[in-house]
Amino acid sequence: MSIEYQNEELKIFSLSSNPSLAEAIAKHTGTELGKCSVKTFSDGEIQINIEESIRGCDTYIVQSTCDPADQHIMELLIMLDALKRASAKTINVVIPYYGYARQDRKTKSREPITAKLIADLIQKAGASRVMSLDIHAPQTQGFFDVPVDQLTGFFIQASYFSKKNLEDIVVVAPDHGSVKRARQFAERLHAPIAILDRRGPRNSSPTEVNVVGDIEGKTAILIDDIVDTGRRVSTGAQALMDNGAKEVYATCTHPVLSGIARQNIDQSPLKELVVTDTIPIPEEKLSDKITQLSVAPLFSDAILRVHNQEPVSPLFED
Amino acid sequence: MSIEYQNEELKIFSLSSNPSLAEAIAKHTGTELGKCSVKTFSDGEIQINIEESIRGCDTYIVQSTCDPADQHIMELLIMLDALKRASAKTINVVIPYYGYARQDRKTKSREPITAKLIADLIQKAGASRVMSLDIHAPQTQGFFDVPVDQLTGFFIQASYFSKKNLEDIVVVAPDHGSVKRARQFAERLHAPIAILDRRGPRNSSPTEVNVVGDIEGKTAILIDDIVDTGRRVSTGAQALMDNGAKEVYATCTHPVLSGIARQNIDQSPLKELVVTDTIPIPEEKLSDKITQLSVAPLFSDAILRVHNQEPVSPLFED
Amino acid sequence: MSIEYQNEELKIFSLSSNPSLAEAIAKHTGTELGKCSVKTFSDGEIQINIEESIRGCDTYIVQSTCDPADQHIMELLIMLDALKRASAKTINVVIPYYGYARQDRKTKSREPITAKLIADLIQKAGASRVMSLDIHAPQTQGFFDVPVDQLTGFFIQASYFSKKNLEDIVVVAPDHGSVKRARQFAERLHAPIAILDRRGPRNSSPTEVNVVGDIEGKTAILIDDIVDTGRRVSTGAQALMDNGAKEVYATCTHPVLSGIARQNIDQSPLKELVVTDTIPIPEEKLSDKITQLSVAPLFSDAILRVHNQEPVSPLFED
Amino acid sequence: MSIEYQNEELKIFSLSSNPSLAEAIAKHTGTELGKCSVKTFSDGEIQINIEESIRGCDTYIVQSTCDPADQHIMELLIMLDALKRASAKTINVVIPYYGYARQDRKTKSREPITAKLIADLIQKAGASRVMSLDIHAPQTQGFFDVPVDQLTGFFIQASYFSKKNLEDIVVVAPDHGSVKRARQFAERLHAPIAILDRRGPRNSSPTEVNVVGDIEGKTAILIDDIVDTGRRVSTGAQALMDNGAKEVYATCTHPVLSGIARQNIDQSPLKELVVTDTIPIPEEKLSDKITQLSVAPLFSDAILRVHNQEPVSPLFED
Amino acid sequence: MSIEYQNEELKIFSLSSNPSLAEAIAKHTGTELGKCSVKTFSDGEIQINIEESIRGCDTYIVQSTCDPADQHIMELLIMLDALKRASAKTINVVIPYYGYARQDRKTKSREPITAKLIADLIQKAGASRVMSLDIHAPQTQGFFDVPVDQLTGFFIQASYFSKKNLEDIVVVAPDHGSVKRARQFAERLHAPIAILDRRGPRNSSPTEVNVVGDIEGKTAILIDDIVDTGRRVSTGAQALMDNGAKEVYATCTHPVLSGIARQNIDQSPLKELVVTDTIPIPEEKLSDKITQLSVAPLFSDAILRVHNQEPVSPLFED
Amino acid sequence: MSIEYQNEELKIFSLSSNPSLAEAIAKHTGTELGKCSVKTFSDGEIQINIEESIRGCDTYIVQSTCDPADQHIMELLIMLDALKRASAKTINVVIPYYGYARQDRKTKSREPITAKLIADLIQKAGASRVMSLDIHAPQTQGFFDVPVDQLTGFFIQASYFSKKNLEDIVVVAPDHGSVKRARQFAERLHAPIAILDRRGPRNSSPTEVNVVGDIEGKTAILIDDIVDTGRRVSTGAQALMDNGAKEVYATCTHPVLSGIARQNIDQSPLKELVVTDTIPIPEEKLSDKITQLSVAPLFSDAILRVHNQEPVSPLFED
Repeated sequence: MSIEYQNEELKIFSLSSNPSLAEAIAKHTGTELGKCSVKTFSDGEIQINIEESIRGCDTYIVQSTCDPADQHIMELLIMLDALKRASAKTINVVIPYYGYARQDRKTKSREPITAKLIADLIQKAGASRVMSLDIHAPQTQGFFDVPVDQLTGFFIQASYFSKKNLEDIVVVAPDHGSVKRARQFAERLHAPIAILDRRGPRNSSPTEVNVVGDIEGKTAILIDDIVDTGRRVSTGAQALMDNGAKEVYATCTHPVLSGIARQNIDQSPLKELVVTDTIPIPEEKLSDKITQLSVAPLFSDAILRVHNQEPVSPLFED
Repeated sequence: MSIEYQNEELKIFSLSSNPSLAEAIAKHTGTELGKCSVKTFSDGEIQINIEESIRGCDTYIVQSTCDPADQHIMELLIMLDALKRASAKTINVVIPYYGYARQDRKTKSREPITAKLIADLIQKAGASRVMSLDIHAPQTQGFFDVPVDQLTGFFIQASYFSKKNLEDIVVVAPDHGSVKRARQFAERLHAPIAILDRRGPRNSSPTEVNVVGDIEGKTAILIDDIVDTGRRVSTGAQALMDNGAKEVYATCTHPVLSGIARQNIDQSPLKELVVTDTIPIPEEKLSDKITQLSVAPLFSDAILRVHNQEPVSPLFED
Repeated sequence: MSIEYQNEELKIFSLSSNPSLAEAIAKHTGTELGKCSVKTFSDGEIQINIEESIRGCDTYIVQSTCDPADQHIMELLIMLDALKRASAKTINVVIPYYGYARQDRKTKSREPITAKLIADLIQKAGASRVMSLDIHAPQTQGFFDVPVDQLTGFFIQASYFSKKNLEDIVVVAPDHGSVKRARQFAERLHAPIAILDRRGPRNSSPTEVNVVGDIEGKTAILIDDIVDTGRRVSTGAQALMDNGAKEVYATCTHPVLSGIARQNIDQSPLKELVVTDTIPIPEEKLSDKITQLSVAPLFSDAILRVHNQEPVSPLFED
Repeated sequence: MSIEYQNEELKIFSLSSNPSLAEAIAKHTGTELGKCSVKTFSDGEIQINIEESIRGCDTYIVQSTCDPADQHIMELLIMLDALKRASAKTINVVIPYYGYARQDRKTKSREPITAKLIADLIQKAGASRVMSLDIHAPQTQGFFDVPVDQLTGFFIQASYFSKKNLEDIVVVAPDHGSVKRARQFAERLHAPIAILDRRGPRNSSPTEVNVVGDIEGKTAILIDDIVDTGRRVSTGAQALMDNGAKEVYATCTHPVLSGIARQNIDQSPLKELVVTDTIPIPEEKLSDKITQLSVAPLFSDAILRVHNQEPVSPLFED
Repeated sequence: MSIEYQNEELKIFSLSSNPSLAEAIAKHTGTELGKCSVKTFSDGEIQINIEESIRGCDTYIVQSTCDPADQHIMELLIMLDALKRASAKTINVVIPYYGYARQDRKTKSREPITAKLIADLIQKAGASRVMSLDIHAPQTQGFFDVPVDQLTGFFIQASYFSKKNLEDIVVVAPDHGSVKRARQFAERLHAPIAILDRRGPRNSSPTEVNVVGDIEGKTAILIDDIVDTGRRVSTGAQALMDNGAKEVYATCTHPVLSGIARQNIDQSPLKELVVTDTIPIPEEKLSDKITQLSVAPLFSDAILRVHNQEPVSPLFED
Repeated sequence: MSIEYQNEELKIFSLSSNPSLAEAIAKHTGTELGKCSVKTFSDGEIQINIEESIRGCDTYIVQSTCDPADQHIMELLIMLDALKRASAKTINVVIPYYGYARQDRKTKSREPITAKLIADLIQKAGASRVMSLDIHAPQTQGFFDVPVDQLTGFFIQASYFSKKNLEDIVVVAPDHGSVKRARQFAERLHAPIAILDRRGPRNSSPTEVNVVGDIEGKTAILIDDIVDTGRRVSTGAQALMDNGAKEVYATCTHPVLSGIARQNIDQSPLKELVVTDTIPIPEEKLSDKITQLSVAPLFSDAILRVHNQEPVSPLFED
């Protein structure tokens, strides 16, 4: 059949950031991961070898640019160079978690715009397309000149909460910048929204957080794109409980979980933190409160649609 | 003196979108507008003539890309081509109002990202620097590879309201996307914030607007970057009054004022709408409720600082 | 059949400048126009939506950059951005009338070369090929780095005149710059040429026009690429009659017909003005003297040949 | 004085095509040619050495891309690479005669546009500005993105003829493509024009040339940009004499003089052929009929004006 | 069959440097050379015509950039421009001998890096891939952004020597820069290596050459990539004989053979000089000592593999 | 004085790889390091802040891309983006040790050319010039389009050995690729050369190393550009001692010293290993056998010469 023939020319490669997700994507796509190796010399330099011919193939590289971000980015760029020189037909970069996404504008003088820089580097190195998921700011798509397939995992998270049949839900934006996201999520759950209005400096204690909107006696779901140190969700959850919420859930697409994130989450009144597998969570960070949903089927479907020249948008339409 | 000498090499040109602002900027800078003409042929094509030598000069073009946006953009691009071919040393594009800024991301499949396209065109045509004011999304700066001096006029508007000595103020974000801006403005006025939570489709009546936060008996100031048809501020003002506000002001940097904006504003309970002069307001749109503050001194100071290689940031630091 | 299969991947889109020509081209090609909409907001900004998937398709955009040129150019550029980001396989720009073509060189200091600028913008926005018809100067092709299929409609006009069986024809160049074109047209009609030698400034009266060559008692055909205000053909016709021509026809590829073109033509001694439909002629400009020949079959054949990887040149070889 | 100081940073280099013109330009500019050597290895490859530091200098390379064009072009490109890597501040390419200028459009399918290619190569190799003289088509300027100072030598040739006090002059265009040039030249001499209408193939004999316009008993001046094989001016002169001209002069900016040009000129009824020194004329080609006017002062003045940031246009205004 | 169908879209063109090799490659590939002509005008400018449609074809241009290098390079660049504008699908440049390869770095201040410049020009003119053989420095591949298929002919030369069954071989590097190449060649012949240690200036006599390594009584094979004036191999051979070698062979991929190369070789103690046909050897340079091996099958196989999307590397693996 | 004034506009910044070298360079230059901070977030992403205005300044970033190479490269690229957006006049990248330099060609199929990729990234991010020292292959300079000032430290090392007054020296190349470097170094010391001919795989024991050339009873100096694991110099030293050398020194520009380098060196018969400070050596790696020479004065002089538009080459001419 036509699709089978085409799949022969489809090669998915995993780099070192998230091999289990890459494997799951390949499996879902009905293929095996392409053969390549990333070798690290004793001086820390890496060397990439693509171990099968990819001439004329549509290639997909799966790499989250999560911690250690710099190393994962360089790995990706070097792989791009290798694929370009090895005559791949197209080079599609699949970045489940786009690191440095929060440095997407100058917040003060003489700052870099690193999210744009990364986009420039990826294109310079040879990418012909980018696929990513819930990048911090939607404008980041405009940092690219090549087509970007911007997927969203919100419907996966929403569907998970729908099945829980929670009652009297309120969706809560943890700060002013994420109200829009909360609004969209709330619409999927047919719920009202509230906002945490943090006034002071970043390290404000929960008691200094002002809740704008009605949460009294409700089941609050905090929504954010990234859970990093876990401080924002944990202090947010505390503030919500202090202000009369019945219970607090949180959902964040990307489980960065840096520093003492596990402690923060474990010690917070959060009932559950729902994340995806765009970033692998090492054993020692895997709090019992964390539920991880897989985006592998979503990426796999998207890759097949791109490869077969079909529209990607139906994947996240209701 | 050194500065005077340098000013000889500084040429400010006005195109046709906002000549009075350009003139005011030039005057503040202590210079006269450069000589150039924009001629329109009977078939609608324009021809630009720069009527004095600009070899080796630092040139600044003042052009808001307001309605008619396409014509103003093409005028700007043609001027850039002329300056480039005429051997200008640097070509600085001063865009007080950056049109198409709201098309800064794909909101659905197969949409363009026109704000990025405009950035690409401006750079391709020859710009070596861009200066603008309160662009819709701060990420737009990242659409450029050349340096962008992103000014803000918020402190001008805040200072105007400070002098009014209004009591018991609450700053109100007219929708979910502008909460952050409201937060920043509120901080300058040492006021709390509230949010208008619009659920339905765009044309929802004021009664369908839910107010998140406490406005009872307070003086509300709606803040937005753009006032376009005036619908958002007028329905917002109505909703605030309906929900117990004492009185409602609004302030928006860019007075687009399209369609029946004047009617909307005149008929709303708004007490005053404070805007700047990034876009000229024609007689017939100039509602009595509108106060227009000039950004000419701000742009002039920024141009002089850029020209004299001094940092621009002190201009909007407290 | 192979061709049919390929046509499935061929999408022709019309923008707003010349929908009837676009429709005729699509019909001739045996397909329907692709679905896209151009929406104008109340502030004059436009938004383009492509309403069907075009992933992996060969797309063709039909857009003359006629009056209002700036708007039609921006529409085209925005559409290019949308197609590029929507993963079109190739983006072919079909520009029946290439506006700003006459600004193809600096005629004095510090002028732009707008025809080149437009070429740069079109390429920057994403065009992979350009197809046009009788562009003012053939060198314009060199402004592009992408392939240009430069069609000519002269043989359509020549064939029309051949069928008329006019006797004792002389082909007349209306000024010094168009002698070459007249020579080529004369060869197709096996006729001699003459030249109108205008000495004074642009607004010279017909009596100041000197006729170089023999036209006494002959049927003169003035040939030009563009009829703009109609002044050149009408004063030319008058001068030819004054100098003894029997009757005067004129033929121009592109009916710009700006300003008082209709009056000029109606009041001139011209017997007939033969144009093509690269630009639509509104009712109020459609003088009885004007005959409009369609270039739709020519563009349709060219598109099919490009799509099927066949040479385009046979289309205008005898 | 300021100018002297600046001249220290002005370096003019000559490559191998026209060292005597380069020397004359340098002398006029009040400087000496920069030190560089072009060495040819026994396998024909060349090596360029710049033998003095040019860091931070404004450099000018004088090179006509005349026969052998390919070698002169490569020499120029290699020199550009050397200057770029040696940290020149600006690299100005002075091309008195721009070879391949006649291949400026596709005259049939699958032809290159070599004049554009050369422009691309010159820019890719590092040129920051181009200065040339009477390039075949004025549109060629648009092939460049860097500024082009397009000089004209017509006023030098016109001034030479003015001083001759010839009576009853008619300026003659040798073919349809050069009528515009003839018109401009005629205006400087206050003379009428005529055109040679060649119908047949390129090698038509003079008797097949039809003269359009009145030349009876007049002193004809044929004007062209290039005299190549000399066939066009010699057959033109013959045709003019056959049709009653009193005597025939010719003037062409660029003395290519290829093949049997000298024979053609010597044996023609031409009284004098006036050319410039954009291309050096070797002894054996220097017919007694040829007068060579120098463009060195013109180029020298232009270089000084560019270097001192003054407008170039006054040089060829009346 | 599938391959046959694809070959219809494969067009190999020969330019003027090495038509016999191009013909042999085409023949091996089972096709005929594409039709194109290179015409030289009397002023030395060339014009290229591609005489059959190549729309949508994979095109291969065979051109060694040997003496006269500049002309062969320009021919190649002009052909690239023509193919690009004629809508070739891919443009593959096959450069059996890459001229100027030895100018691959700055050996002193203010030198160009001409090998990089050529790479830039080839890419700018439109090449989508490059195929070459034993380029002087392997780093040259990195001068390109497009894929480079770097072939090696060493195994052809090694195989020739293997069949000779020479005994007690030592492979000799003629200078310090070519020891690595010698090491590789020696490995194929299972032989030790020696090095000629030249101390003085380039024109040192053989007696000044110091032999590092043991060659006493052995059959020495000098290996180099290029034989240019023949001085290095002839003085090397003399030095080897003077130091006790039994007999001396030499093998060089590229027979540049400039200047008095034939004399140098004829008069040297070299027994045989084995070269390939990347550069054609004119009759008068064809010393009896020279054996020429063809690389046509190698290039043909490589072209077919590239065209059929198969890996090229198996061609030169043991 | 003029130089002082200029120095005000000269800003040297240190990133995190080699702060002590950067400090020494700044001190030698008579200036202080510019203020910038590199902050690492808990998720490993870094943020760079330039803490003083650098508008219109000539900026120099000192950063060796040593271990951890990926992090140091990303730091450099982000800093470049920040400087570019902050309107630096020129951005000069000083890379004392250029990591990944050894991946400068494809040694087998489908490998990247990482040294070229790094060059591309540095230029894309905004560098206007690069300064480096003894890059592995001199061709690497050609990977850049911006000017590269390639310094060499050999004369510093040679001068150190000259002062030692060692007798009967032989300079030894540790493998076939470094013979040329050894030849150059030997010339400075007026010494002969020898070569270590390693046949087997990389991990060959010293006994398998064949010495080509005479070392009997001599003082051998092994020379290499990089000392990485120390294996090559230590096995080389052993082989030289085994083959009769009197004593063995080694000198390598860049002390990478990865893995068990210290052990290898300590346990080898090496008498002394002379390196430079292009890479800082941590306490635990600082074998007593290592002597570190500073290249700070060299870089400082080079920076001042570049800044004052003087030639750099005199610095390493005798």
